[in-house]
Amino acid sequence: MTTGTPAPFTAADYKARMDRAAQSAAAAGLAGVLVAPGPDLVWLTGYHVPADTERLTLLVLAADQEPTLVVPTLEAPDAAKAAGADAMTLRDWTDGKNPYDVTAPLLDVTGRFGVSDNAWAMHLLGLQKTLPETSYVSLTEALPMLRGVKDAAELERLAAAGAAADATYEEIKKLAFAGRKENDIARELAGLLKRFGHSQVDFTVVGSGPNGANPHHEASDRVIQDGDMVVLDFGGLKHGYGSDTTRTVHVGEPTDEERKVHDIVREAQTAACDAVRPGIACQDVDRVARKVITDAGYGEYFIHRTGHGIGVTTHEPPYMIEGEKQELVPGMCFSVEPGVYLPGRFGVRVEDIVTVTEDGGRRLNATAREMAIVG
Amino acid sequence: MTTGTPAPFTAADYKARMDRAAQSAAAAGLAGVLVAPGPDLVWLTGYHVPADTERLTLLVLAADQEPTLVVPTLEAPDAAKAAGADAMTLRDWTDGKNPYDVTAPLLDVTGRFGVSDNAWAMHLLGLQKTLPETSYVSLTEALPMLRGVKDAAELERLAAAGAAADATYEEIKKLAFAGRKENDIARELAGLLKRFGHSQVDFTVVGSGPNGANPHHEASDRVIQDGDMVVLDFGGLKHGYGSDTTRTVHVGEPTDEERKVHDIVREAQTAACDAVRPGIACQDVDRVARKVITDAGYGEYFIHRTGHGIGVTTHEPPYMIEGEKQELVPGMCFSVEPGVYLPGRFGVRVEDIVTVTEDGGRRLNATAREMAIVG
Repeated sequence: MTTGTPAPFTAADYKARMDRAAQSAAAAGLAGVLVAPGPDLVWLTGYHVPADTERLTLLVLAADQEPTLVVPTLEAPDAAKAAGADAMTLRDWTDGKNPYDVTAPLLDVTGRFGVSDNAWAMHLLGLQKTLPETSYVSLTEALPMLRGVKDAAELERLAAAGAAADATYEEIKKLAFAGRKENDIARELAGLLKRFGHSQVDFTVVGSGPNGANPHHEASDRVIQDGDMVVLDFGGLKHGYGSDTTRTVHVGEPTDEERKVHDIVREAQTAACDAVRPGIACQDVDRVARKVITDAGYGEYFIHRTGHGIGVTTHEPPYMIEGEKQELVPGMCFSVEPGVYLPGRFGVRVEDIVTVTEDGGRRLNATAREMAIVG
Repeated sequence: MTTGTPAPFTAADYKARMDRAAQSAAAAGLAGVLVAPGPDLVWLTGYHVPADTERLTLLVLAADQEPTLVVPTLEAPDAAKAAGADAMTLRDWTDGKNPYDVTAPLLDVTGRFGVSDNAWAMHLLGLQKTLPETSYVSLTEALPMLRGVKDAAELERLAAAGAAADATYEEIKKLAFAGRKENDIARELAGLLKRFGHSQVDFTVVGSGPNGANPHHEASDRVIQDGDMVVLDFGGLKHGYGSDTTRTVHVGEPTDEERKVHDIVREAQTAACDAVRPGIACQDVDRVARKVITDAGYGEYFIHRTGHGIGVTTHEPPYMIEGEKQELVPGMCFSVEPGVYLPGRFGVRVEDIVTVTEDGGRRLNATAREMAIVG
């Protein structure tokens, strides 16, 4: 695990990102980009809003104008402290004013704009009403790779987050599982992630026995039994970048079927990771994993996509999913996480974060993927 | 402070809310209501999504059809466990499918729909593209009072949350402030809110000295000094309902000006609370508070609205703000929180939650509003 805090991103770094976004938008035929609070805004400006409320905060980027952040007056002092504040102009609006009237002069009145996926519908409707000739497209559709290709400083952070998740797994598998509640193990996972430098824990899935067959089960008061398969899927943010890894362990000796399913999932995961290289389509990573599982007769039990991008958030483009023809390019980072879920019985998932290099894929998680036997 | 856990809401409770929402929508000329993850969905169904991600979860309510929740396949087991699950049909969609195609058959193709304020813009754009003849309006604009009038069971929870916040204040003012960091006091506030039954802490503002002049300052590593005014604004959820109260305390003896400003804010807050009664407009509550502060010569330093509704979330309609002509009705609950912010110097805010009764307003916070002197 790497230690030490990386040098913070500077206003110049954020300015370069904002310029790149504005240029990408122009190249895609857009009049600009409208950025809502959340990962897009954090990545472009370093600004974390105090709370994502009904008050409009919106960054307007366009190729021929200064980046401008529309911000509620009472949050302007917070925005002015953001690491990227020097690279943008603040335009504040006061309670009782119409924030769309404040935003409108910044927009081409007949333009088509990319808008953050998670912008509030209320705000989009407000803009559509104020400027009825404008049109909008989600950033994931218009500029899916805006944050998709990581630079060296970002890859360093993602590697550090992955190493911290690995250290967490190495510790958790030393613990006794049998007789403890899933929630107890989940708490241990959260504590370990923090101990290894995470500032934020996003999820700590502990799916024991039948609970493992629900891929989005979090953790419950179910007492883990000897003989349980247990899916452990955990991650969060360290130095502002995400971790996300899954290992499936077994309490005591597994049955032949449990061993077989784990082997299949692991084989699928390895095949998909091995398939990663510049130029192949996202959907091909999904297809490679899915083929292994389908050929083994478990295709109907692999009920989710193979992976998702990761960066300043733990779920972002590119998605490794049928229909996604985006080609991989060096610097992309995403999860590879096939799974098999047998309803009412057990689930198996194995997940690593993988980054695309010139030569192929490089895993950012390095712990053993074989089924660990826990107590 | 009330103790004990209130009886949980049942599927019948949620069904009544869903029916009422569908009927209100029809009465407002809407074809239905589209409910996104967040407070609207929690209030209508009891369903907390595992995470609010790019995968579409959407409740469709219309007067002439079964409530239907469109949900990602891998989250369907979670949705099926929601307290209101028996009152709705689940329609799941699998990764790789177009969720808007799954939603479209549930919608009147030329209808106008109310949509949760915080629905993702990406999803609204997906619906607009799939059904170009539909139109949309935010729920706050179309049905602002959907969650605005609380019933007895909700008022009981809000009162319990308020009492817990009061107990927190009574404890925090016993502590020594001078020489400690704002963040230390903020941590104490969070711990006390949890000790008094909050499941979730939403904010713990500690604004000492000049930091108090930023109304949305959270807390920092600033060391609190003797002679500082300190704004304490804290709240969260207890039994699923919100608390939010502010008291401004002083470390040691205040100056005459500090005392005067605190008196003005307190007088404004009292006047606004006294003005609360059925039939007056929200903006009149704001005007009453603002007049006191303006007449005293500090109008330009009261830079936010007077209050916001509270319920399953700590910020919701009705808003006590100029331009809001909504009339108060019994059962509404909202904050009354005027403030004065002198840039670079100090701030004062006093806030209670108030509920509207047949006879007037009833405060849900009962701690002394006079400036407490702390050590």
